[in-house]
Amino acid sequence: MESNSIQYHPIGVINSPYQSLVGMPIQPSGADGVRGKIILDSQFVSGLQDLEGFSHLILLYHFHRSPDHSLVVQPFLDEVPHGVFATRAPRRPNPIGLSVVRLISVRSNIIEIANVDILDRTPLLDIKPYIPVIDQPENPRIGWLEGKIENFGKKKSDDRFLK
Amino acid sequence: MESNSIQYHPIGVINSPYQSLVGMPIQPSGADGVRGKIILDSQFVSGLQDLEGFSHLILLYHFHRSPDHSLVVQPFLDEVPHGVFATRAPRRPNPIGLSVVRLISVRSNIIEIANVDILDRTPLLDIKPYIPVIDQPENPRIGWLEGKIENFGKKKSDDRFLK
Repeated sequence: MESNSIQYHPIGVINSPYQSLVGMPIQPSGADGVRGKIILDSQFVSGLQDLEGFSHLILLYHFHRSPDHSLVVQPFLDEVPHGVFATRAPRRPNPIGLSVVRLISVRSNIIEIANVDILDRTPLLDIKPYIPVIDQPENPRIGWLEGKIENFGKKKSDDRFLK
Repeated sequence: MESNSIQYHPIGVINSPYQSLVGMPIQPSGADGVRGKIILDSQFVSGLQDLEGFSHLILLYHFHRSPDHSLVVQPFLDEVPHGVFATRAPRRPNPIGLSVVRLISVRSNIIEIANVDILDRTPLLDIKPYIPVIDQPENPRIGWLEGKIENFGKKKSDDRFLK
């Protein structure tokens, strides 16, 4: 292991109806109502205490099916390429995915969630409660996405990030 | 390296005025206006193309000074303990931090940011643009934080997560 590497271990797995990277909603807003399930490793169950009071969770997970990173990508919502850090594309130097999902229920180590835009069997890294006062900035500007954002709900993925 | 481990490498470092884990703002809302700087490894500079159009960034980083994880923690904002996944405390099984910060400027590999609640020299893992339509759920409920949230701006950290 190189000296500056950071090592994490999955704390569980995310199950969803999406078996393939092609044809998925490109973001949770296109996954409205789609249900999924977190199966947490049972050793971590006590970490879920009081989670159920929150309506939304931030999930951090490993893009396990993403090929090597690419610093410039052509996102689904535009005709021109952008720097990968100005997109949410999976081909990042550290392929960590982030989704805000709706919490349905917590039963022992099983967490039911909705608005899932995550591939089946994705390794889960962290669960955080969504807290508006810290996670929701005022009057955000969205750069190249301005005027393209209304397509988020309609667009489905294709195979561009597999190539 | 164990078979199910995931290895990441810092893409740069975050500089801030906070040299110690004690006395920091506990979240960005308590860090209003506090400036910091991302020094991105220069090999990744082309990934920043078009980032400047966004007003806010989601930073993912490694809590490099956090001791071993604890599944039940007593957060700064409450008198009673909660499961670590129902808090934003650093002592998580995978100690990944998440902050929404304001983008000031991008010049080559240096990114000036504001509303920084991050320790100086923190290893950076990822930069994502903040996109309200996917990152901002409707009518979130905040569980045990209800009625305590107004203290976010006033509270400072103490040494509880160092013990």
